[in-house]
Amino acid sequence: MKLLVVRPVVQTEQLSKLAGELGAKELREAYGCGAELEVAYLPYGPSSLECEYDECAAAPAICEVVKTRRSETDGILVDCFADPGIDAAREVAAGKPVLGAGEAALTAAMLLGERMCIVTVLDSVGRMIYRRAQRQGLRGRMTRIRSVNVPVLATTDRERLVDAITREGLDAVLTEDADVLVLGCTGLRSLADEVAGNLRSKTGFDIPVVDPSIAGIRMLEALVGMGMPQSGRAYAAPPDKLRVLPVVGSMPG
Amino acid sequence: MKLLVVRPVVQTEQLSKLAGELGAKELREAYGCGAELEVAYLPYGPSSLECEYDECAAAPAICEVVKTRRSETDGILVDCFADPGIDAAREVAAGKPVLGAGEAALTAAMLLGERMCIVTVLDSVGRMIYRRAQRQGLRGRMTRIRSVNVPVLATTDRERLVDAITREGLDAVLTEDADVLVLGCTGLRSLADEVAGNLRSKTGFDIPVVDPSIAGIRMLEALVGMGMPQSGRAYAAPPDKLRVLPVVGSMPG
Amino acid sequence: MKLLVVRPVVQTEQLSKLAGELGAKELREAYGCGAELEVAYLPYGPSSLECEYDECAAAPAICEVVKTRRSETDGILVDCFADPGIDAAREVAAGKPVLGAGEAALTAAMLLGERMCIVTVLDSVGRMIYRRAQRQGLRGRMTRIRSVNVPVLATTDRERLVDAITREGLDAVLTEDADVLVLGCTGLRSLADEVAGNLRSKTGFDIPVVDPSIAGIRMLEALVGMGMPQSGRAYAAPPDKLRVLPVVGSMPG
Amino acid sequence: MKLLVVRPVVQTEQLSKLAGELGAKELREAYGCGAELEVAYLPYGPSSLECEYDECAAAPAICEVVKTRRSETDGILVDCFADPGIDAAREVAAGKPVLGAGEAALTAAMLLGERMCIVTVLDSVGRMIYRRAQRQGLRGRMTRIRSVNVPVLATTDRERLVDAITREGLDAVLTEDADVLVLGCTGLRSLADEVAGNLRSKTGFDIPVVDPSIAGIRMLEALVGMGMPQSGRAYAAPPDKLRVLPVVGSMPG
Amino acid sequence: MKLLVVRPVVQTEQLSKLAGELGAKELREAYGCGAELEVAYLPYGPSSLECEYDECAAAPAICEVVKTRRSETDGILVDCFADPGIDAAREVAAGKPVLGAGEAALTAAMLLGERMCIVTVLDSVGRMIYRRAQRQGLRGRMTRIRSVNVPVLATTDRERLVDAITREGLDAVLTEDADVLVLGCTGLRSLADEVAGNLRSKTGFDIPVVDPSIAGIRMLEALVGMGMPQSGRAYAAPPDKLRVLPVVGSMPG
Amino acid sequence: MKLLVVRPVVQTEQLSKLAGELGAKELREAYGCGAELEVAYLPYGPSSLECEYDECAAAPAICEVVKTRRSETDGILVDCFADPGIDAAREVAAGKPVLGAGEAALTAAMLLGERMCIVTVLDSVGRMIYRRAQRQGLRGRMTRIRSVNVPVLATTDRERLVDAITREGLDAVLTEDADVLVLGCTGLRSLADEVAGNLRSKTGFDIPVVDPSIAGIRMLEALVGMGMPQSGRAYAAPPDKLRVLPVVGSMPG
Repeated sequence: MKLLVVRPVVQTEQLSKLAGELGAKELREAYGCGAELEVAYLPYGPSSLECEYDECAAAPAICEVVKTRRSETDGILVDCFADPGIDAAREVAAGKPVLGAGEAALTAAMLLGERMCIVTVLDSVGRMIYRRAQRQGLRGRMTRIRSVNVPVLATTDRERLVDAITREGLDAVLTEDADVLVLGCTGLRSLADEVAGNLRSKTGFDIPVVDPSIAGIRMLEALVGMGMPQSGRAYAAPPDKLRVLPVVGSMPG
Repeated sequence: MKLLVVRPVVQTEQLSKLAGELGAKELREAYGCGAELEVAYLPYGPSSLECEYDECAAAPAICEVVKTRRSETDGILVDCFADPGIDAAREVAAGKPVLGAGEAALTAAMLLGERMCIVTVLDSVGRMIYRRAQRQGLRGRMTRIRSVNVPVLATTDRERLVDAITREGLDAVLTEDADVLVLGCTGLRSLADEVAGNLRSKTGFDIPVVDPSIAGIRMLEALVGMGMPQSGRAYAAPPDKLRVLPVVGSMPG
Repeated sequence: MKLLVVRPVVQTEQLSKLAGELGAKELREAYGCGAELEVAYLPYGPSSLECEYDECAAAPAICEVVKTRRSETDGILVDCFADPGIDAAREVAAGKPVLGAGEAALTAAMLLGERMCIVTVLDSVGRMIYRRAQRQGLRGRMTRIRSVNVPVLATTDRERLVDAITREGLDAVLTEDADVLVLGCTGLRSLADEVAGNLRSKTGFDIPVVDPSIAGIRMLEALVGMGMPQSGRAYAAPPDKLRVLPVVGSMPG
Repeated sequence: MKLLVVRPVVQTEQLSKLAGELGAKELREAYGCGAELEVAYLPYGPSSLECEYDECAAAPAICEVVKTRRSETDGILVDCFADPGIDAAREVAAGKPVLGAGEAALTAAMLLGERMCIVTVLDSVGRMIYRRAQRQGLRGRMTRIRSVNVPVLATTDRERLVDAITREGLDAVLTEDADVLVLGCTGLRSLADEVAGNLRSKTGFDIPVVDPSIAGIRMLEALVGMGMPQSGRAYAAPPDKLRVLPVVGSMPG
Repeated sequence: MKLLVVRPVVQTEQLSKLAGELGAKELREAYGCGAELEVAYLPYGPSSLECEYDECAAAPAICEVVKTRRSETDGILVDCFADPGIDAAREVAAGKPVLGAGEAALTAAMLLGERMCIVTVLDSVGRMIYRRAQRQGLRGRMTRIRSVNVPVLATTDRERLVDAITREGLDAVLTEDADVLVLGCTGLRSLADEVAGNLRSKTGFDIPVVDPSIAGIRMLEALVGMGMPQSGRAYAAPPDKLRVLPVVGSMPG
Repeated sequence: MKLLVVRPVVQTEQLSKLAGELGAKELREAYGCGAELEVAYLPYGPSSLECEYDECAAAPAICEVVKTRRSETDGILVDCFADPGIDAAREVAAGKPVLGAGEAALTAAMLLGERMCIVTVLDSVGRMIYRRAQRQGLRGRMTRIRSVNVPVLATTDRERLVDAITREGLDAVLTEDADVLVLGCTGLRSLADEVAGNLRSKTGFDIPVVDPSIAGIRMLEALVGMGMPQSGRAYAAPPDKLRVLPVVGSMPG
């Protein structure tokens, strides 16, 4: 099985440093995953995804990547919690399943507990997630969305982040009856275990802490393994017509 | 009051013929509207909006138009039933209200009756509308979405369209308890009165038939008249960062 | 365009003083509104609306006003946040749109942000609003309803009111993720700008503060401008039959 | 236990004939009920309830009856499927439980099966019931509301009514998965057993057919038997103030 | 009328002491109930119900009791807030109404106020109640479920319990707009009046405090009084087939 | 990875013939699954699951199997569409993920399309599924549940079944806007591909047809691969106490 991980950002030096240069091979090891993983970045688009405008800037390029590479893969993960462009990507994926890391994480969380708390990086990202969750019909099973107020590209102070997420998660468990935590940004990957350890020592309970990238890869594997296409009626191929498409340039955002 | 009507497509000869070259002045007269209207087309994007991919192709250009012209207008209508890019457009509108013709039409319909039936052009557009309505929390007040199976750019056979919409609307009134009809495509504008007349003669009731463009203009006038900005907390201005933005080109879609 | 503003109370000296004797001309100026406004009070009914009993005492007289004046107006606003009698008024309005200030305000708020906080005068009014919001299907997008515990006819200490509303609104923004505020009583009109200024200075964000009377007038203008009747199937004219109707008297409530 | 049955109409000769002059004693026998029943009609109001306007014409008089007789009864049934004025009546009932026949029937139905079909007399009554059910949060468990298109005061052709209700109920069972039927008008009382017999012979299943008056009496007995007041916080007593109340007259509706 | 109260536990000495040996006669007096009450315990199962596993251990024995005694009773109450096995019990009750104390209490609460707070014994029971309420569609009208963290079989320190329930209930009234309290465990029976008294003295309002056993008996009386079977389509009798059923033994759980 | 597939029935000769004696090895090949699969039947319980009573008869034995074998597996699938006993099984699984085939199928379906139609064997099973879907909050995205009226143990006439499921599925696609089909019984496994082929040739669209057993295995693999326990707060281990547990016997059901 071959899976394509689309990181919906342009690859910059800063990002590479932040992500620790995780290529496909390292990803696969990190995720203990049986599938062959490939990583793709965008030919154009934002350097991080923190608002609706970023998502809209990324979506056309995500579709371009999907169109170019759909024939050589079995499924596609859009590796961002806000699920940018996934409905459009499904229309151009020729039946190959497309999954967003956010919807995968929320779905997995609902199978692990009753009521989830999403902790994300910024309030503005929280707003986007409210809109996505409303569309999925999951707002009734969520606590308030929490944020730690750290921009995506500044998520480098690991200790501070772990502390802040633990604090918000613990508060959600104690005052809003959360029983599952979801990290609301793929930039928080790798903090899940530490946060879970903290929550266990403070509450005495196993509180699952869902990492959206891992949930995304694993749920996508499941869909591909089921051998079924995405619905052709829900996501029909776009009709041919004139579309004046953008080409790559570089302007300040 | 100055309002900007963004037609989220590139302007083509075919479209111009179809739309009857309605410029700002004609629009204003057609809508009997007190505000000063200006019409903008996209610098790049699709020639019509019929699927999620079209929407995603249009959204960045909509944002560009909004950024360029926000300072010279009091409010912006994205004149398409699928509300492409409105969340992103709100983030870059500097507080000026941005409204989609679809959400305006659904909102108005809910103030005119209890249960609405949306009749649109194509099944694939119906799918998009299901997703939007789910996000707005309105699916509980909708009948099944109907379509007449005519592509947007072929909506020229007026008589056939009026007949098909009447047939679907009547069926929704009689078998699903609809009491308001909503035309689910701005391409169907100008058919509303005729359909309403048909429904009146067949049911004996006034069944409002909401035209999304007119609803959009009028509801936007209302929001601007209230003198309030769109929420800066729901739609914060995008942070500065590197974004590799597309420039205009022309490739087959 | 002629609009009728029904103030669903009997006109008393106390009220006149409170409302500053705003007649139709002043209203129009205050609302910067293009339509011709007329104001009507009730021939009988309560002197203020603070509970379900008040609403039920006002509703028949609202219908009488609508029946008497429907032929000389294009649309009718019931100018009270609790929307007294609007369903009945629609049935006797002969197709002319009838709008309640409460539903207008909630509708407008949903177009300006994601999650609203209603601040009203009394807890008992809050209960009525919960019921109305449930009927409109909007409770999922509301924070807890706040109140400042001031009776309608005592809303004269402007400074105290502004402070209390600001405090509740700020708390809703910070602890419940509100991004739009709605003043839950027409008696609070004219405080909106001040509260919005306070919230801006305390949060750094534009938080729209919706005044229900202004929202009501403006949304009604929009509906009338769309040129459509209220649904005759949702609001059919009452059949003729014996109804022993009350005549005006004056007893202590 | 003493219960007051408020028939929210004025008593006319026609109605008396229709209702077979069921006084309190006969009612009690008909319902096999242990409580002492008293019947009250309205001092003014409509002669039947078929639209929102009728309900609004009845509500103030219902409150008057409740205020006059609350001290001599243990609970009050508003004996009409549309539940006119119940929220206001609760505020003036001094803690005595007030129940509407409609909400009682829907509540009982939900304890007898999974999905209910309401069959009522007129389409216009169906609209009112949609609004009430939305407010109770029960629309998700209802099929389409059916009607037999017979005015309340013409419900005398028993055979035709039973046939029409059976036909609608059967269709709801077979095509919409209904498993409980609710008679959506107190004027249909006494037809329940016959309809249930028909459904049993046609489907082979026991399909409960809920009569709203009986459900109302029995559920009210239950609430009174629990010995608890209606919530004083949800239904606080109306504050004293000037209310110009109507006195009885007689004008054509 | 004969009603069977199934206490879904095995009868132990400890339980008998706790329940004060309330037999059928005492129950009837305690509940002021006109029906003839019989009490049944389980032949096998748990000694108390505090988690899903307890419920699943009790359910088959509940069905056995129902099958054995259905012909000699008019209705059956499963006297536990978690409503164990009620759907299965309905299928084997031969049309006799089966009610759970939990659903009865929630239903009654919704007729007494607008927004309820459930206070239960343990967090783990709260989880079960969240699931039941979701299935009944009532989560939108509930505050957070509160617990006092006392195991069912340790509910002997009356004063401490009353204090803890009062504290949680008061907090729900003041900070979450609750207006009805529901005791979320039949083990808390007999505390209702004291808690209600406390809430009255602290808030000045009558806040009903619903006891699930009393609500269960009274609502069941109502259903039986209505003379209707449970829906045979929603709860069809199980088909004959091989079922290897357990026989009673005694192993540590 | 080791997964335990619990078939929640007792193993009979008839069942073995029906299921084609699929042992663990064959299952693994059939599902193309990387995990090591083991199959367990119940020590006591029903021979098939077609109603709530069957489920309740199966649940305690499911828990016994889980308790006995939890230490030697990484995750447990309860292989029945009605998800019998999964909440209780989670409490005794010591943190190992437990999944039901029904919830897995519904979850996967929601990631493949917008609106699903479940086709099951019997109407009575459809009732159970309505209840489960209500609990998961998914009823808003479902069409009416369809059934082909064939008992589980008579699902041997393959051709007739495929035809009936195709007919119902096609009707749901054309008249209720379904875009994903879900087979509502694990007894229908192996028909999915044929039905999907039929739907493709009749509609021209890829309509995914979800087999619950395959969805169950694959989604469970995903959860186990994520390396997270089920929430210890949502599913706390049952407290120690006296439970009189049944031992195996054999009586007619």
